[in-house]
Amino acid sequence: MSFWGIEVKPGKPFTHNFDNQRGRLHISQATLSIGSSTQKSVVQCNVGDKSPVLLCALLPDKNESCPLDLEFEEEEEVIFSVIGPRSVHLTGYYIPIVGCGHDDDSDSYGE
Amino acid sequence: MSFWGIEVKPGKPFTHNFDNQRGRLHISQATLSIGSSTQKSVVQCNVGDKSPVLLCALLPDKNESCPLDLEFEEEEEVIFSVIGPRSVHLTGYYIPIVGCGHDDDSDSYGE
Amino acid sequence: MSFWGIEVKPGKPFTHNFDNQRGRLHISQATLSIGSSTQKSVVQCNVGDKSPVLLCALLPDKNESCPLDLEFEEEEEVIFSVIGPRSVHLTGYYIPIVGCGHDDDSDSYGE
Amino acid sequence: MSFWGIEVKPGKPFTHNFDNQRGRLHISQATLSIGSSTQKSVVQCNVGDKSPVLLCALLPDKNESCPLDLEFEEEEEVIFSVIGPRSVHLTGYYIPIVGCGHDDDSDSYGE
Amino acid sequence: MSFWGIEVKPGKPFTHNFDNQRGRLHISQATLSIGSSTQKSVVQCNVGDKSPVLLCALLPDKNESCPLDLEFEEEEEVIFSVIGPRSVHLTGYYIPIVGCGHDDDSDSYGE
Repeated sequence: MSFWGIEVKPGKPFTHNFDNQRGRLHISQATLSIGSSTQKSVVQCNVGDKSPVLLCALLPDKNESCPLDLEFEEEEEVIFSVIGPRSVHLTGYYIPIVGCGHDDDSDSYGE
Repeated sequence: MSFWGIEVKPGKPFTHNFDNQRGRLHISQATLSIGSSTQKSVVQCNVGDKSPVLLCALLPDKNESCPLDLEFEEEEEVIFSVIGPRSVHLTGYYIPIVGCGHDDDSDSYGE
Repeated sequence: MSFWGIEVKPGKPFTHNFDNQRGRLHISQATLSIGSSTQKSVVQCNVGDKSPVLLCALLPDKNESCPLDLEFEEEEEVIFSVIGPRSVHLTGYYIPIVGCGHDDDSDSYGE
Repeated sequence: MSFWGIEVKPGKPFTHNFDNQRGRLHISQATLSIGSSTQKSVVQCNVGDKSPVLLCALLPDKNESCPLDLEFEEEEEVIFSVIGPRSVHLTGYYIPIVGCGHDDDSDSYGE
Repeated sequence: MSFWGIEVKPGKPFTHNFDNQRGRLHISQATLSIGSSTQKSVVQCNVGDKSPVLLCALLPDKNESCPLDLEFEEEEEVIFSVIGPRSVHLTGYYIPIVGCGHDDDSDSYGE
């Protein structure tokens, strides 16, 4: 259960809350949804009360996918929103915890 | 035996099942197959009964390859499908397990 | 608290100082702000008294986002500036310290 | 001695064999050679007797470089070939072995 | 002191020599300098007496930045040169050494 994927629709921001069980989230990719509008869609991120920042801009028929490489492990709310007409799919994964003396996948023992 | 590569054809979804021997799968890249259609092909991913998400959009003669950086270690089925006329090649690798006191490649001892 | 994001405006360079508590900074992405100018914006970086270098060039309506993969852990000041009409959003994260016998997130114990 | 780079010419596939001394190969990038043809060049990979897969498509005057992020540690032969008129340069590096109590570069001691 | 950045000018190759103190170099990005020529600039790399390979091709007004993800830890000289009219900025960082029982940044103790 490492994969993570959501669709962020225009006007419907998505709130990500840190989950201690799942850990640090790595967002890998943004992809424009299928649609007819040719205007760009931009993904914005708000963390707590900091200034919002733009994560990527997707251009229909030119660049409809964008690699991201972002990581989130915030105590505050992280809100993703879309500025533009088409929704954006964000995909990534939860990062496995690497350590000594214990594996990140405890199910692998005793099998 | 780390490399992983498949071709996903339109109308023929590919199902990936977690293999405990091979471990966590990292998908690195999507590339459009050779063909004449100029319509885009989009790769969709379904994990268990979650909402499907789009992983990338490939545009003939503009962006025919797309980096992905996704990781899968799901107990549920992961289904990749293509929306569009041309099939898509997905490539990546199984991630070696890094730990202490034992190497990920036990064959390297005693050689 | 791993996410990092700033907006660098033309004529207003941003200075990053190393913070021992937060550690090594990974910058992942540059994205052009929303605006009407069609001229490109280039991100420049000055570290101490070394020659300035260009990190990326963003082209309106062509490539408005650019992956970066840069890391900073400098004792000297690091100054990011924009050459061009539109401001640029830089996003990334602080890299967790990986070690033995102690976790990078000490808050995760005792919860 | 970590860098790895080859040129794959049309009609002259390149065979990569696993080398126990050098370890796991990471291929980072494909770049089109200098030439006049405007037709695309596609890189294909054959591992043992598995179905060939496409790694990337390079488009003259549009996208002449493509990031790859692939890793190979195969007992079987890995054959890279080019479909198209211009040769392709593949670059990457051998991945250092990370472990406990011994460094990946034993030459660094005693110098 | 992890950041690394240089400008490679046409006709003035840059030689990188391995520095035992700084370690393995990761090159992340190539960006075209500001200029008026619309011809492409290609970055070439020569390692010792091996055949030169191309690392990336930068196209003015189309793709002026290119991610690289290359690593160098060579005993031989590594020479970067530019084929084309405009110089290219290469940026990256020195990779911290990860181990057990000792941190990569010993300065962080006792501060």
